[in-house]
Amino acid sequence: MIMKKFINDSFLLKNKYSQELFDKYAKNAPIIDFHCHLDPNEILMDKKWDNVAQVWLGGDHYKWRAMRSNGIDEKFCTGKDTTDKEKFDKFAETMPRLLRNPIYHWTHLEMARFFGIDDILLSPKTADEVWERANAVLQGGLTARECMKRSGVEAVCTTDDPISDLSAHKKLKEENFEIKVLPTFRPDKAHAIDNPQAYKDYIATLSQVSGIEISKYQDLINALQQRHDYFDSVGCKLSDNGIDTVFFAQTTESELDAILAKVLSGNVPTVDEVEKFKSAVLLECGAMDARSGWTRQMHIGALRNNNSKMFKLLGPDTGFDSIGEFNFATALSKHLDMLDQRGELGRTILYNLHPKDNEVLATMLGNFQDATCEGKLQIGSGWWFLDQSNGIKNQLEALSQLSVLANFVGMVTDSRSFLSYPRHEYFRRILCQILGNEIEGGELPDDIELVGDVVVRVSYQNAKKYFKF
Amino acid sequence: MIMKKFINDSFLLKNKYSQELFDKYAKNAPIIDFHCHLDPNEILMDKKWDNVAQVWLGGDHYKWRAMRSNGIDEKFCTGKDTTDKEKFDKFAETMPRLLRNPIYHWTHLEMARFFGIDDILLSPKTADEVWERANAVLQGGLTARECMKRSGVEAVCTTDDPISDLSAHKKLKEENFEIKVLPTFRPDKAHAIDNPQAYKDYIATLSQVSGIEISKYQDLINALQQRHDYFDSVGCKLSDNGIDTVFFAQTTESELDAILAKVLSGNVPTVDEVEKFKSAVLLECGAMDARSGWTRQMHIGALRNNNSKMFKLLGPDTGFDSIGEFNFATALSKHLDMLDQRGELGRTILYNLHPKDNEVLATMLGNFQDATCEGKLQIGSGWWFLDQSNGIKNQLEALSQLSVLANFVGMVTDSRSFLSYPRHEYFRRILCQILGNEIEGGELPDDIELVGDVVVRVSYQNAKKYFKF
Amino acid sequence: MIMKKFINDSFLLKNKYSQELFDKYAKNAPIIDFHCHLDPNEILMDKKWDNVAQVWLGGDHYKWRAMRSNGIDEKFCTGKDTTDKEKFDKFAETMPRLLRNPIYHWTHLEMARFFGIDDILLSPKTADEVWERANAVLQGGLTARECMKRSGVEAVCTTDDPISDLSAHKKLKEENFEIKVLPTFRPDKAHAIDNPQAYKDYIATLSQVSGIEISKYQDLINALQQRHDYFDSVGCKLSDNGIDTVFFAQTTESELDAILAKVLSGNVPTVDEVEKFKSAVLLECGAMDARSGWTRQMHIGALRNNNSKMFKLLGPDTGFDSIGEFNFATALSKHLDMLDQRGELGRTILYNLHPKDNEVLATMLGNFQDATCEGKLQIGSGWWFLDQSNGIKNQLEALSQLSVLANFVGMVTDSRSFLSYPRHEYFRRILCQILGNEIEGGELPDDIELVGDVVVRVSYQNAKKYFKF
Repeated sequence: MIMKKFINDSFLLKNKYSQELFDKYAKNAPIIDFHCHLDPNEILMDKKWDNVAQVWLGGDHYKWRAMRSNGIDEKFCTGKDTTDKEKFDKFAETMPRLLRNPIYHWTHLEMARFFGIDDILLSPKTADEVWERANAVLQGGLTARECMKRSGVEAVCTTDDPISDLSAHKKLKEENFEIKVLPTFRPDKAHAIDNPQAYKDYIATLSQVSGIEISKYQDLINALQQRHDYFDSVGCKLSDNGIDTVFFAQTTESELDAILAKVLSGNVPTVDEVEKFKSAVLLECGAMDARSGWTRQMHIGALRNNNSKMFKLLGPDTGFDSIGEFNFATALSKHLDMLDQRGELGRTILYNLHPKDNEVLATMLGNFQDATCEGKLQIGSGWWFLDQSNGIKNQLEALSQLSVLANFVGMVTDSRSFLSYPRHEYFRRILCQILGNEIEGGELPDDIELVGDVVVRVSYQNAKKYFKF
Repeated sequence: MIMKKFINDSFLLKNKYSQELFDKYAKNAPIIDFHCHLDPNEILMDKKWDNVAQVWLGGDHYKWRAMRSNGIDEKFCTGKDTTDKEKFDKFAETMPRLLRNPIYHWTHLEMARFFGIDDILLSPKTADEVWERANAVLQGGLTARECMKRSGVEAVCTTDDPISDLSAHKKLKEENFEIKVLPTFRPDKAHAIDNPQAYKDYIATLSQVSGIEISKYQDLINALQQRHDYFDSVGCKLSDNGIDTVFFAQTTESELDAILAKVLSGNVPTVDEVEKFKSAVLLECGAMDARSGWTRQMHIGALRNNNSKMFKLLGPDTGFDSIGEFNFATALSKHLDMLDQRGELGRTILYNLHPKDNEVLATMLGNFQDATCEGKLQIGSGWWFLDQSNGIKNQLEALSQLSVLANFVGMVTDSRSFLSYPRHEYFRRILCQILGNEIEGGELPDDIELVGDVVVRVSYQNAKKYFKF
Repeated sequence: MIMKKFINDSFLLKNKYSQELFDKYAKNAPIIDFHCHLDPNEILMDKKWDNVAQVWLGGDHYKWRAMRSNGIDEKFCTGKDTTDKEKFDKFAETMPRLLRNPIYHWTHLEMARFFGIDDILLSPKTADEVWERANAVLQGGLTARECMKRSGVEAVCTTDDPISDLSAHKKLKEENFEIKVLPTFRPDKAHAIDNPQAYKDYIATLSQVSGIEISKYQDLINALQQRHDYFDSVGCKLSDNGIDTVFFAQTTESELDAILAKVLSGNVPTVDEVEKFKSAVLLECGAMDARSGWTRQMHIGALRNNNSKMFKLLGPDTGFDSIGEFNFATALSKHLDMLDQRGELGRTILYNLHPKDNEVLATMLGNFQDATCEGKLQIGSGWWFLDQSNGIKNQLEALSQLSVLANFVGMVTDSRSFLSYPRHEYFRRILCQILGNEIEGGELPDDIELVGDVVVRVSYQNAKKYFKF
């Protein structure tokens, strides 16, 4: 018996309408990946990999988490005393357990799209074959830039600290690399006063890089503005704020000066002081973005570094984060309203990590839309834990019913890996699945052109028009 | 090619069971619209409209929001310097973008049901034709009362401030208008102490209208009771409380007197004082309703007037509200329990605006049901932002699984427009879709009569029996 | 016309894949019911019932709630002056109203599986027939133990207070009853300091039973440890904590001593004191479990005893509880992390009552998984109000997408009734429905063996391996 290929042309598409929508309006649309965590130096040096374990498992904390959840020893995730092949085998062992987890879909999409392996599923039985065939492709020239080109990428935006010199971005621009690689200004550390020692070190570096001595609150803002201007000069069009919840507390400049002084002398601030300080810095950051005509992103709701033992061993971003739970609707409303009152609310994309917040955000947008552009405020695509089939569907549902799907700027990989571009295909297939099913069910008009216009906008055109990279 | 009509007999109905349920048990059931925001004077004067823009776009903040989200300038929403036709054209321009938004379904249902336009979709290309055809129908005699009659409306309940003299309701009763038009007692302003100046003005009017000088807390309650009695004499059977969250704080009458005195002398109360005052007034309001044998509604969870700039320009209810996020389960439990302990918990309908609260409410009901009637406590139909396909389905799911669907009093338009009655049809189609799908899937018995009984109860009979208008 | 049987072989299974998965991998798998509320004495005495009302309605607060929601008088629920037949008739009267409520499915599954009644639906028309036929089966020998045997039960874990002498468990072990009946250590009363009088009484009993005089905090912990050791000696492998929210507050032993002294002298503790005390006891309980190699359960989020009037009449667990709403993500993270840092975090199953917490828990697990075993931390099956079709699906969705479905230890009845075992069948059918639908839709590989492995693991094998009863 020849089994039906798992990853085939109809993957996730359940009727002819969905298929036509995908084939005509989504399949060949370029990718604008306006939020990712690629290392720009790896693009610059056109990174190569010895084997598929390096490109698949190195730094991918989604996969480490899945392996740990399957009882795999840490040495096969982040350990230094195991070989790449041993790690790969443990991943292959975990794979059949991951049915219904997005990693199962992503992995097989990546196997098919980058390595041409769509005739077998990854499992202990096929591990050696996948290893050989994938490695052959890597050795045949699948470099970082090749991954991007073969995926039809038009532009990517990396995520960068204000202290970054953006040298890789500048060199890529100078050499006219055909894919735009732009930075994103992410000033999270500039208000991370919870940890006085780390903050003091950061401020010292920021002072040095910006050439502005920081002792008062306004110095900090000036230094950030200097870096913001520098990022702008290198082509930056986006900022990003990663925050566990939204802060909005009234304060005064003298209070802010006192809090800064307290923290810089090594004292832990109170909860109230943290809230005041973060409230103020976040408002200033939003204002800078609006004045520069950038788009601002806010990623709200992660609960990070939950495992102290592993944090000490491995540091952040190693797979020990989860979904937080905060009621931020009121604070977010006040934050946006304050910016709006000051004429400093620009294009903004709000991402939530708790699915209960989909509807809060999708309705919050409508309070501040205006004639600046179509969909000035956006709810971002399913983020992190929500970047999976069900998460994507819930975000699309809230967005559609409570705001305007057709103006959505669409998907991002949010990834550290050069193999993640099929997540755009995954998203587009889900979008076409939903729309095609609704044409069939009579919930949308039987007019492919009308519905196809939504698909091509969300897949590509809206982002193109919104960001103007 | 002749395209299938979008709004056709099978709209939203996916199999023969759903179709039979709708045709036999729902289609011709009258409408009891027990919660709306119609202006009773417009019924009294049998309002006429010059054109479809006036009846569709005048005062409809749902549509304004959608237009703003599409980047349409405010002058085409609420502006005075644009013509009705210009506004209509901008709405038509927005329409194709609203695929999957409830406005797309509602608008085409309204086009079909009131204007007989079911052969074209609204878009810039068809805008002129829709304008002409709809206007012809309006000029041919589609007045406010005609809209109600053609929709099979049996009774409506408007939403009225305690200070209202209910003159329109009285005149409609006197002239024996065939559709019952009853008031609803909505005392929100009677506890809106957050804004002392507005509150002082309101209390002055309430004093005057009730003939009771208000200086102590008990005076306020007496004045409200006087108005409650008056509303009762005009046929009122329902109250409504619109609150952002549920308040329950212990307090004393002397504290309440002090808070009232403070606010009436123009001072802003503390958060604690607001909570105490609102807790007390809400308990009293519930008790009044129980003593009069009314049904009480509580609409919980809106975050209103988020945009200060637009609030100054346009005032409330203009499209700048969104879904709030509050944890009110414990307070609501204590509020209902206190009324119950005092023997003052009557029939009550709880509406939530955050979808996460569907399950909280659907289980809260069960704590206080008794032999007074079937379904004494109810969770209201999907409200405001949740009054759309997905919101309706989620409410029905929580209600069905956690309480008793068959005892549900059903849908309301909650609308300011005379064209909103097809929302009842929309709701009924969704209900029949769900039930018919489950018969086909074997999740419900293959017994149309058994299941049809649920449909006719929820569509009409339960409300008839529950409210006894 | 012969109507299709409602409960038939394909119940809830919509295609051949689902059917094959159920028939081959789920149908005949034994039941490990690792969390229930059966009375071990009723197993020991092999309880018999005079009629179906006793076994169906006696003590089943789910059904009482449903009846009250239908306006049925309390005397037909818990009253002493009505006959069993009268109660049964009122239940039969309620039944047609319960379409889409899980009781409708459960009741008909129980009718079919235990009483062989699958040709009629329960309603007032069939009430007498069901009464006769079911009673005949009961009189024919369907005892408590027979219910368990006919259901294919391999092991059950009851829920027991630390003060219990576990005599029934010991006797069942002595007589080598073929089904394992093990206790579960549930120390909720040991930290229920909110009610000083009840707490004082409880502590007196605990002192006596443990032989440890309790006046200091450490005495309490020692007494609990003594009972924990005793439970372990009787074969206990599980604990359970029923808490409304998760507590995590820093405190000191002297503070804890003071709080204990305060409560034991009859004073009501402050909210802060309650939080500190509960935080400390819960950490100790977790540590005891880890040291004994037990699995710990935490049931989080119920809002209990909401109806004071009925609580006075009927006491707890009589149908007046509902879903609470608490934001416990941060506290839970700190609680688990503290145990983990101390090397005292063992196998743990977290159950949530608010569906919004599915995703919080499903991602929390991943922070603390390790090589101890596959799926060391688990999110429990849909609990209480969520133990129904939609609740089960949502839990499975969050678990699948955010963790590892294939390592799930699966379903529990959580029931007080010997007739509840078909809930395992219900769960398995839903699981097979989901998986089979996704094979058909191309979202899972068309490989029955691969997918069937997930079914048999979740239905039986994982629990077998995880608990090692």
